[in-house]
Amino acid sequence: MGPVVNGGDGRGKECRSDAGELTARTEAGRRMVELAQEHAADFATRAADHDRDNTFVRENFEAMKASGFLAATAPQEFGGLGVSSLHDLVVAVSRLARGCPSTAIAANMHLGFVWSTARGWRAAAQPPPQLTMLLRLLGRGRIVVSHAGTEPGGGAISFPRTTAEPVPGGYRINGHKIFATNAEIAETVVVFLRVPDGAGWFNAGTAVVRTGTPGMTVERTWDALGMRGSGSHDIRFTDCVVGRDMVLVGRPLGEMATEWPGLLAVNFPLVAAYVGIAERAMSHVTELAVTRRQQPSGQLLADRAPVRSQVAEMAVELAVARATLGRAAEAIDAFLARPDAEVEPADAYRAIEDFQVAKLVVNRSAAAVVDRAMAVTGGQSYRTGHLLNRLYRDVRAGGFMQPYSPPEALEFVGRTALGLDPFDELRDSLASARAAAAAG
Amino acid sequence: MGPVVNGGDGRGKECRSDAGELTARTEAGRRMVELAQEHAADFATRAADHDRDNTFVRENFEAMKASGFLAATAPQEFGGLGVSSLHDLVVAVSRLARGCPSTAIAANMHLGFVWSTARGWRAAAQPPPQLTMLLRLLGRGRIVVSHAGTEPGGGAISFPRTTAEPVPGGYRINGHKIFATNAEIAETVVVFLRVPDGAGWFNAGTAVVRTGTPGMTVERTWDALGMRGSGSHDIRFTDCVVGRDMVLVGRPLGEMATEWPGLLAVNFPLVAAYVGIAERAMSHVTELAVTRRQQPSGQLLADRAPVRSQVAEMAVELAVARATLGRAAEAIDAFLARPDAEVEPADAYRAIEDFQVAKLVVNRSAAAVVDRAMAVTGGQSYRTGHLLNRLYRDVRAGGFMQPYSPPEALEFVGRTALGLDPFDELRDSLASARAAAAAG
Amino acid sequence: MGPVVNGGDGRGKECRSDAGELTARTEAGRRMVELAQEHAADFATRAADHDRDNTFVRENFEAMKASGFLAATAPQEFGGLGVSSLHDLVVAVSRLARGCPSTAIAANMHLGFVWSTARGWRAAAQPPPQLTMLLRLLGRGRIVVSHAGTEPGGGAISFPRTTAEPVPGGYRINGHKIFATNAEIAETVVVFLRVPDGAGWFNAGTAVVRTGTPGMTVERTWDALGMRGSGSHDIRFTDCVVGRDMVLVGRPLGEMATEWPGLLAVNFPLVAAYVGIAERAMSHVTELAVTRRQQPSGQLLADRAPVRSQVAEMAVELAVARATLGRAAEAIDAFLARPDAEVEPADAYRAIEDFQVAKLVVNRSAAAVVDRAMAVTGGQSYRTGHLLNRLYRDVRAGGFMQPYSPPEALEFVGRTALGLDPFDELRDSLASARAAAAAG
Amino acid sequence: MGPVVNGGDGRGKECRSDAGELTARTEAGRRMVELAQEHAADFATRAADHDRDNTFVRENFEAMKASGFLAATAPQEFGGLGVSSLHDLVVAVSRLARGCPSTAIAANMHLGFVWSTARGWRAAAQPPPQLTMLLRLLGRGRIVVSHAGTEPGGGAISFPRTTAEPVPGGYRINGHKIFATNAEIAETVVVFLRVPDGAGWFNAGTAVVRTGTPGMTVERTWDALGMRGSGSHDIRFTDCVVGRDMVLVGRPLGEMATEWPGLLAVNFPLVAAYVGIAERAMSHVTELAVTRRQQPSGQLLADRAPVRSQVAEMAVELAVARATLGRAAEAIDAFLARPDAEVEPADAYRAIEDFQVAKLVVNRSAAAVVDRAMAVTGGQSYRTGHLLNRLYRDVRAGGFMQPYSPPEALEFVGRTALGLDPFDELRDSLASARAAAAAG
Repeated sequence: MGPVVNGGDGRGKECRSDAGELTARTEAGRRMVELAQEHAADFATRAADHDRDNTFVRENFEAMKASGFLAATAPQEFGGLGVSSLHDLVVAVSRLARGCPSTAIAANMHLGFVWSTARGWRAAAQPPPQLTMLLRLLGRGRIVVSHAGTEPGGGAISFPRTTAEPVPGGYRINGHKIFATNAEIAETVVVFLRVPDGAGWFNAGTAVVRTGTPGMTVERTWDALGMRGSGSHDIRFTDCVVGRDMVLVGRPLGEMATEWPGLLAVNFPLVAAYVGIAERAMSHVTELAVTRRQQPSGQLLADRAPVRSQVAEMAVELAVARATLGRAAEAIDAFLARPDAEVEPADAYRAIEDFQVAKLVVNRSAAAVVDRAMAVTGGQSYRTGHLLNRLYRDVRAGGFMQPYSPPEALEFVGRTALGLDPFDELRDSLASARAAAAAG
Repeated sequence: MGPVVNGGDGRGKECRSDAGELTARTEAGRRMVELAQEHAADFATRAADHDRDNTFVRENFEAMKASGFLAATAPQEFGGLGVSSLHDLVVAVSRLARGCPSTAIAANMHLGFVWSTARGWRAAAQPPPQLTMLLRLLGRGRIVVSHAGTEPGGGAISFPRTTAEPVPGGYRINGHKIFATNAEIAETVVVFLRVPDGAGWFNAGTAVVRTGTPGMTVERTWDALGMRGSGSHDIRFTDCVVGRDMVLVGRPLGEMATEWPGLLAVNFPLVAAYVGIAERAMSHVTELAVTRRQQPSGQLLADRAPVRSQVAEMAVELAVARATLGRAAEAIDAFLARPDAEVEPADAYRAIEDFQVAKLVVNRSAAAVVDRAMAVTGGQSYRTGHLLNRLYRDVRAGGFMQPYSPPEALEFVGRTALGLDPFDELRDSLASARAAAAAG
Repeated sequence: MGPVVNGGDGRGKECRSDAGELTARTEAGRRMVELAQEHAADFATRAADHDRDNTFVRENFEAMKASGFLAATAPQEFGGLGVSSLHDLVVAVSRLARGCPSTAIAANMHLGFVWSTARGWRAAAQPPPQLTMLLRLLGRGRIVVSHAGTEPGGGAISFPRTTAEPVPGGYRINGHKIFATNAEIAETVVVFLRVPDGAGWFNAGTAVVRTGTPGMTVERTWDALGMRGSGSHDIRFTDCVVGRDMVLVGRPLGEMATEWPGLLAVNFPLVAAYVGIAERAMSHVTELAVTRRQQPSGQLLADRAPVRSQVAEMAVELAVARATLGRAAEAIDAFLARPDAEVEPADAYRAIEDFQVAKLVVNRSAAAVVDRAMAVTGGQSYRTGHLLNRLYRDVRAGGFMQPYSPPEALEFVGRTALGLDPFDELRDSLASARAAAAAG
Repeated sequence: MGPVVNGGDGRGKECRSDAGELTARTEAGRRMVELAQEHAADFATRAADHDRDNTFVRENFEAMKASGFLAATAPQEFGGLGVSSLHDLVVAVSRLARGCPSTAIAANMHLGFVWSTARGWRAAAQPPPQLTMLLRLLGRGRIVVSHAGTEPGGGAISFPRTTAEPVPGGYRINGHKIFATNAEIAETVVVFLRVPDGAGWFNAGTAVVRTGTPGMTVERTWDALGMRGSGSHDIRFTDCVVGRDMVLVGRPLGEMATEWPGLLAVNFPLVAAYVGIAERAMSHVTELAVTRRQQPSGQLLADRAPVRSQVAEMAVELAVARATLGRAAEAIDAFLARPDAEVEPADAYRAIEDFQVAKLVVNRSAAAVVDRAMAVTGGQSYRTGHLLNRLYRDVRAGGFMQPYSPPEALEFVGRTALGLDPFDELRDSLASARAAAAAG
């Protein structure tokens, strides 16, 4: 991969940033990672432009459709690569992010959904025809999916305010979603919402809405510090009517459901993007340090012990990030391999704890690596257009990834580490809300 | 100061971010700080625009001229406020930065030069007429000064490559300077350069070049991650001829001169801008936390223990930044109060050590405060136009301030803490270069 | 002060650890700090012995009585030095700790009480005769005071379980106190306890009990990781009867009283002991680094850039600790200078916030300095008898100092920083307990 | 394992400290880990006594001989368990350390040597009879081995001063070794030394000396901050003559040899002891937090958000330590699986980099976990006899483990991360010494 592989004078070639990298554990995963590396080399050439222009990485999605990458997590029966290991998906996302972090997270919003759909299909004794049809489209890379989860004001994972009201033959959806990555090109939007249960309360629900359905509007609002190529726009639903088959109604809000696999597939691999960012920053510095000479001494940066000390701390941070993410991914694969029937809530909490710990660690480490990379590189890295200028902005997105902010992630981990139920408080909140609804 | 002072429901009013702030120690300083606060309230209303448009904070300089703020460090005899305490200058810069960090650093590039000129005038038995004339202009706020120190490739503080070659009646300057804050509006540019000594080596020199002098071109190149309103453009000198009086020739390069006071006045107060940034981020969060309610619980952010824990760490970081900077400023004032004749190199090294330690500490702390502020505020702070989006970019400039990068600052501090001469290596480098020059 | 001042080859002489130290701000304080330095040089010769033998620093107290140091905070009218600045008390404690940390904290348990008594005497329109008599004894250095505050299970500051029950002519005390520093030699024990109010609840109370009073037993239980010379034994009260004059009855438990000055005087200067420890570790390393040569290269430790990098980080940590503590001490002096009548609870909370922030910062920094000192010194510092072996154990006491553990200190700071009342929860707890008491 | 496994009220049972632990990857490793757990439960009952009395863990070695644990890394042909994975050795050492850290490191000094001997035997086309005989003894658990590597003043790994001078029929050894763990009971001491090459320089050498050989004296000097049960005494050699077969002569000092496997086997798994310490501290806290109630509120520690926040950070640190160590162990196993002939120096440097990074990370994390455990537990953990008092002292040994101190480990990692030869400077030093020797 062009911009990442070192070379030149033979010293950079030995660079550790390649040596300790995460690698796929399955054959399908290895193929996916190879594709990711090829794409990354290409995407790296356009990342700065999309960042500057705040444009969606549209050509990258075309290329990933063409190569079959977007169908990597679809079953082979449907034309996919059959990647079922989230660990390997993690590795692929990290590679992609070396070239273009925006594309890496955007791709996983789609890939995670495909993975989740494939899992449902595999698990079903008799898969419903819609599922089969959907997988056919996904397996051929015909459609791109956007996730509409987050809402203004937060809390949408546990208590969405977007509502699908039953109407004859279907549902009428109203609500406002933000941070809907891929919204600009998606043919299909997966909407997390609530459905009135007819008794004053709500069930959780998921709607699949095709682009062009009247009442659904994508507002091109995305303009942010970083990840500018991800097209994470707003979507508004105003009396948007969809057919009955397009809404999956789940359990009452406040009862923790068994939808962890989908949450994990869509959100956990996003963490890998920040490892990819750190790897890119590391490569930049190790290459620079053996080629740039300082004035007035004429020494290479690598000849300065203070520089080596920074690089060493970067290597330590990178090792920590990779190891913690890799190990969490293995644990999550093991969790997902267990039959749903055997899984207790505590098992799911542990898997989410692994996810949250990895997120906290990777975000801290990756930010530290980029920061040190800038310190070594000097003032030029502060200029617009410099690689590290962009990575400094992209890397900060990590703390905003669903479902927990860093302080709330620590609270979650503190509870699970103590064997407490992490959803106690939330359940109390929702129970109060439900009681109020019943009373009102 | 509008955006910084909390209020409203009476809870924010108690906010500690005001309680522990640095305060001026002299009467003149107090007046300057009051002005800074008034300006900051005004500048805060335009900071986002200059950031978005990448435009120099021109109106802010007009306002600071009009109020007398730009002459604060000029002697009262010349119409200034007579601020001679760098500690108080530090306080004023921190206040300005709460409103607009770009303006804060740009103002100090000017104020530090004025301070330094005033000091030279006070110390001189019989001040040269040019100095008096210059102070007259500065005292009336007629001119703005830009510093042209940094060069591409670094090292310009110890070994500038910009050269003033003697010609009949004056000097001919050639060279390329970068990061010349204020260049866009400055009537006067102070250029750090070298002057051939006629024996194969160079003396350090400082030229004062008026805008409009043929051969000096300001290139409007400034476009960076943050501090976008500071107009830190490139300046090129191509056979730019200036009169003899306009170049001050110093000691041979490689001999450490007694120019520390000027270096300290121009560069040390810049550190205060990052304290101001942290204070602004703190204010934002303490105000938000007592007004914003979380969904679905309806709790105030301040009711969440994980939020309070973040705020507590912010308060700790802010206390550390303020205390370390304030104490360094007091020590530096004490150092500068000593007659030049009594000062040994080791004393100057300690003053620079205090400066570098404060810079390292403030930069770490301020970045941590902004980071936690974003974690508490959530995804909206990642959007373009949000205050914290800008502060996150502005705060990162701190590590690039002259004269040392963070790793080299640590090396400097390590040497002085051990009683070693921090310039040993540099002197060796320059001696080698000089020997090579002599041989060649 | 022998072991701290560097010297020898002239390089160590320049050591920064002296250059940036805290200094007294009042004349009386300067005299006290001088005495502290003289004592420290002496105490340093015995510190290892008391640590090894787990014996109280009895001779040190004899020496501090003889020199007048123990009366430093008594008014000059009573023979004291008249030190009224807590800032200067902080400086003196830090100096003492360079020689012997155990003595430093033990001395302050006494000095803080003397300070507090002197303050009460100064504030009283007509001081009660007992107070005058007590100050006469304290001013002549005749008696040593021990504080009996902490109880097993914690919480004694807000809800002591030790009880003084009214009996004819006085009170009968029952209870169990731990960590009563100085208990072994104190002629007087100050006991924090509760007094039944006759209506089912309790008032806060303070008893002064003379050694030898039947029913009070000092149990020589002190045996801890560090601070082994401090004699922080258990004291048990079993039907210990004292006269009415010896018990001061305060406000109901649960109402926050205005006893902050005493709390601050006794507990806040203890933080300075950890700055003294860090200074001692720093001195050790800077001296070692310019004298010890490494094998096989024969280089001085100071010639190794990785060593300098550690020393630099130590210098940064030490600067942070000193600055934060010094600034907190100045703020607390300013708070204490205000007339009690003017002080609002929020002012007192801020003073405690300053105290807690300084404690958190100093403990983190001092521990980091000692840790790095060991890393530079190598395996010999792990051996029993080595200075750093002891400092590593002593420094860890900092987190256990009253009134808050590190996590609870953060919660306190988080609340005050947000303008919330830090005692809300405690008041609720006590109100519940009171209601339960009333009901039962 | 009794003291580590939580239980009782059902909440502790869920504790994460078990859930995320490292597990063996081979069948032989699993058996070893089971034994380690059984031993740990037993050793935990005596750990405090050995710590207090500063006595070697003699009974633990008897138990490990009896169970076959000490022969775990011997080939099955010789009665061992045939554990060849260093990863699994790492897991076993971590488990042992939960019960008794001193035993864990002492055991590995032996187990690593056995592993290394077994590796030599397996690799040899025709193993020399001495090797076979040695393995017979080791496989039956008949002898315990001590390593005599470290020397006063450091540098012994690259330039030992202990010398084996050729004499008729053998060698005469003179020198002084320190930190020779197990020295007290070892039947065999493995001595790292130098052998004159007859041309003014030295070859590296390893001697195997039987206890009782005249001239070798074990001095029972071990008395340290922690790891007090490890019996890491001094050994002096004074004209100690051994037979020719007992000294293995290697390559010239200064040429990097291929002895990495032995270094890795003896030293790398020691890092695991600190993970075991952290796990023990975590278990202590998670159990305490769900059973201890605070006064006056009566809340469980676990009910306090500030406590949960500390526990969360402990969980994060523990995850980081486990993941980084586990991943390094896997990488080192992969390195060791390659035939010696294929291995380039750069490969060995990377394996050592993995080792050093894991050591840095684990030591930082484990110390942080123990520190937070004390903060949550409170003042009682500072008392002599408390588990955390001991772990606080034991955990600090991590930074002194061979072959690099933390600052030098960072320098090593900085060099390898940049593709530089980490031994450049050392080679220069030794070349100078050699030139001086030749000249002298």
